[in-house]
Amino acid sequence: MKPSVPKGTRDFGPVEMLRRKYIFRTIEQVFLKYGFLPLETPAMEHLETLTGKYGEEGDRLIFRIQERGRTFASGVAKAVEAAGTGDMQGLAEATRRFTASEALRYDLTVPFARYVVQHQNDLAFPFKRYQIQPVWRADNPQKGRYREFYQCDADMIGSNGLLNEVELVQLVDEVFQAMGLQVAIKLNNRKLLAGCAALIGYPESALDIAIALDKLEKIGMEQVLAEMKERGVEGPKVEWLINELHRLNTSTLGWRAVLAELKVVLQGSPLGLAGCAELETILDAVAHEGVGVANHLAIDPTLARGLDYYTGAIIEVKALEGTLQSSICGGGRYDDLTGVFGLKGMSGVGISFGADRIYDVLLETGKFPAELGASTRLLFANFGDAEARHCLRLLRQVRAAGIAAELYPDNAKLPKQFTYAEKKGIPYVAIVGDSEMSEGTVTLKRMGANEKGTAMPIEAVIALLTR
Amino acid sequence: MKPSVPKGTRDFGPVEMLRRKYIFRTIEQVFLKYGFLPLETPAMEHLETLTGKYGEEGDRLIFRIQERGRTFASGVAKAVEAAGTGDMQGLAEATRRFTASEALRYDLTVPFARYVVQHQNDLAFPFKRYQIQPVWRADNPQKGRYREFYQCDADMIGSNGLLNEVELVQLVDEVFQAMGLQVAIKLNNRKLLAGCAALIGYPESALDIAIALDKLEKIGMEQVLAEMKERGVEGPKVEWLINELHRLNTSTLGWRAVLAELKVVLQGSPLGLAGCAELETILDAVAHEGVGVANHLAIDPTLARGLDYYTGAIIEVKALEGTLQSSICGGGRYDDLTGVFGLKGMSGVGISFGADRIYDVLLETGKFPAELGASTRLLFANFGDAEARHCLRLLRQVRAAGIAAELYPDNAKLPKQFTYAEKKGIPYVAIVGDSEMSEGTVTLKRMGANEKGTAMPIEAVIALLTR
Repeated sequence: MKPSVPKGTRDFGPVEMLRRKYIFRTIEQVFLKYGFLPLETPAMEHLETLTGKYGEEGDRLIFRIQERGRTFASGVAKAVEAAGTGDMQGLAEATRRFTASEALRYDLTVPFARYVVQHQNDLAFPFKRYQIQPVWRADNPQKGRYREFYQCDADMIGSNGLLNEVELVQLVDEVFQAMGLQVAIKLNNRKLLAGCAALIGYPESALDIAIALDKLEKIGMEQVLAEMKERGVEGPKVEWLINELHRLNTSTLGWRAVLAELKVVLQGSPLGLAGCAELETILDAVAHEGVGVANHLAIDPTLARGLDYYTGAIIEVKALEGTLQSSICGGGRYDDLTGVFGLKGMSGVGISFGADRIYDVLLETGKFPAELGASTRLLFANFGDAEARHCLRLLRQVRAAGIAAELYPDNAKLPKQFTYAEKKGIPYVAIVGDSEMSEGTVTLKRMGANEKGTAMPIEAVIALLTR
Repeated sequence: MKPSVPKGTRDFGPVEMLRRKYIFRTIEQVFLKYGFLPLETPAMEHLETLTGKYGEEGDRLIFRIQERGRTFASGVAKAVEAAGTGDMQGLAEATRRFTASEALRYDLTVPFARYVVQHQNDLAFPFKRYQIQPVWRADNPQKGRYREFYQCDADMIGSNGLLNEVELVQLVDEVFQAMGLQVAIKLNNRKLLAGCAALIGYPESALDIAIALDKLEKIGMEQVLAEMKERGVEGPKVEWLINELHRLNTSTLGWRAVLAELKVVLQGSPLGLAGCAELETILDAVAHEGVGVANHLAIDPTLARGLDYYTGAIIEVKALEGTLQSSICGGGRYDDLTGVFGLKGMSGVGISFGADRIYDVLLETGKFPAELGASTRLLFANFGDAEARHCLRLLRQVRAAGIAAELYPDNAKLPKQFTYAEKKGIPYVAIVGDSEMSEGTVTLKRMGANEKGTAMPIEAVIALLTR
């Protein structure tokens, strides 16, 4: 049987890895420049740490872990035996012992909140951390959706200041600038959405309304109205609001004009106007002369993002190049993330980059740097024991100069050695036979060039490759 | 209830992370320089990929994963119900559905072998890959033993040449040189151990003998003899051999002299002499003029390493500084690792660095570089909205110069802001109030220095911090 990986998971070979590392490195360098420091949490968390944080659907998608390799089958056998003899205590015990108490992390935000509460006495607040680690979800895999994927998060906790949101917008801008990718950075505010809900007479349904609104771009007005009706949200006011938001969202107005109109729409809702004011403060600071961002900045009053815990600003980023429609980065403000773990009143704001989607966009648009570095630059061909030993010395000199180099490990036929260099993308092969050994040179051949090669001392090779 | 992590797992906060990243980066850079390219495999593998590869004890320590969050309790209930009504098919079905078919990876070698077989048609052989990822074992945690820990492996597969072993010895030497840590690199060969077993009349017990011998340094001759006797290996020849190996192992002879004596001991065993010849070829090449290694190199004829799959060279590294007795790096040659997955005749050789143990040694011996980089260099104090907006501009200039910098996000009392800088280890604070704003300067204060601070233009601050 051909070996394979579990569904929804992937191997990343050298080419993919070098590209992925480029993405992680680019994001990480900006995180560090903005004062975020690295954190890693375990792959496993107590099941109780995770459950109840991601909604009913999320709970179902959490991978549970069996303790110490006990198999379910032996557990069932014990339970059935206990039940058969009416030993209810034995049944309960068998069930308890074989029930998972640990699970794989589902995102990086909840483990971060758990970490902050657990280590609250050792941390300097506001605490800024970034975290780049895989997460696992027992989703049905499909194109672009995996059971194991990386998240790249930066969050700060313990500060209410809107300067934090300003920083995150700048950070997002800088990451995509560094990748040379044009994006649209869309902003909204949950208070604005809550204000809308109050304004149309359904303050209790704010979250439902937000989630329906979020689909406006994808499914259109009719369907959004139908979906709201299903949840009992209907009437002329509802239609008026959807119409207004749709109009603003599809207009070509700049953010200042959109904001002015939003203030008119929301004038009956203090909460909605508070949301507008926050948006204005953030955008004003970002657009400030000498600050600014290079990417397109917009207010999207229908933007909600799925996660329940956002309470203020919401950010979402879409690529303006390539065909991918979904967002490649998103985040927002959450007022009380650590409350469930017993630490109240800590406001946080964070951003998460979707590395897999960014990968797809960069690949499609040809934005990966041609030279992702780090692969072997020079292969010494192997002509036998004496030559190989001679080459070991040269190899050492080349590597001491910081150049990635290899000696072919077997005295194989030369075409085979050249095929190896070609397949691995090694640009130069050094030939060292009797004459080179006696003359103290190597014959350097450039792969792909139809040439005899040039004899030169190893120092010249090093100079050429470090140029 | 105070939140916590599962037993045997750990959070890594910023300070630990910066140190850990230093270790990974140092190892990775040497891997790349030697032509190894990165690979990552999924955290999960099919259970059948892993079972039977790590011995009976290993199998018990594999963490299994439950599918799609079905709880064991509900599975048991269904099974008990089916059993109660005599529905044996229902019982089997309930058992099957709730039995784990996936598991967390236990090491990086078996997933690597699985990867090579699965992708054999796309790879350039000899294939050299490195892999730095966590592994999971349901072991009983104790000091220095965790349920989640990182392995840093480099392996090459598809070449029999002993030059591969030479490369690995050089690579190991270079990694520890880069860390400034003195180590002893010990070599042995499984053929030599098999030769010993044949020589004393127990060729079938080669592995048992090797594993007992491996403990010679730790538990002494008497106990090793007792352990062998338990496994049916005894007699005057056995005692003679243990005596000889113990003598060589505790001698102060260099590797050439040890090798000469080993050849005498093993002269009756062609296999043992073949092992000696391999050791000689490897060590000769490593010790070759102009090649050489900086660290202590020795033959340890009792070295076995636990893993069954080694067939040739064995390498083990111990720190010569600090108090840690256990090995911090090890590896060897395995002739047929991919055979179990259907690809025969592929010889491989690899090395694995124990990041956690290296961490402990570097910390104990004070070998971590003082400046692990990457933390914030400058904090702009926050004096209110207008000042903060002004600072945003300066902040942008500082960051554009590649300097990690922050603006305190709230208009908090100054001592609080300084405490933040101090706790986070930020060396400089920039004060920008009314007078600085009007004069176009910032007042730069060095943390820890009892000084008023110096007014200067932002360009001077940038020059100072990039110096």
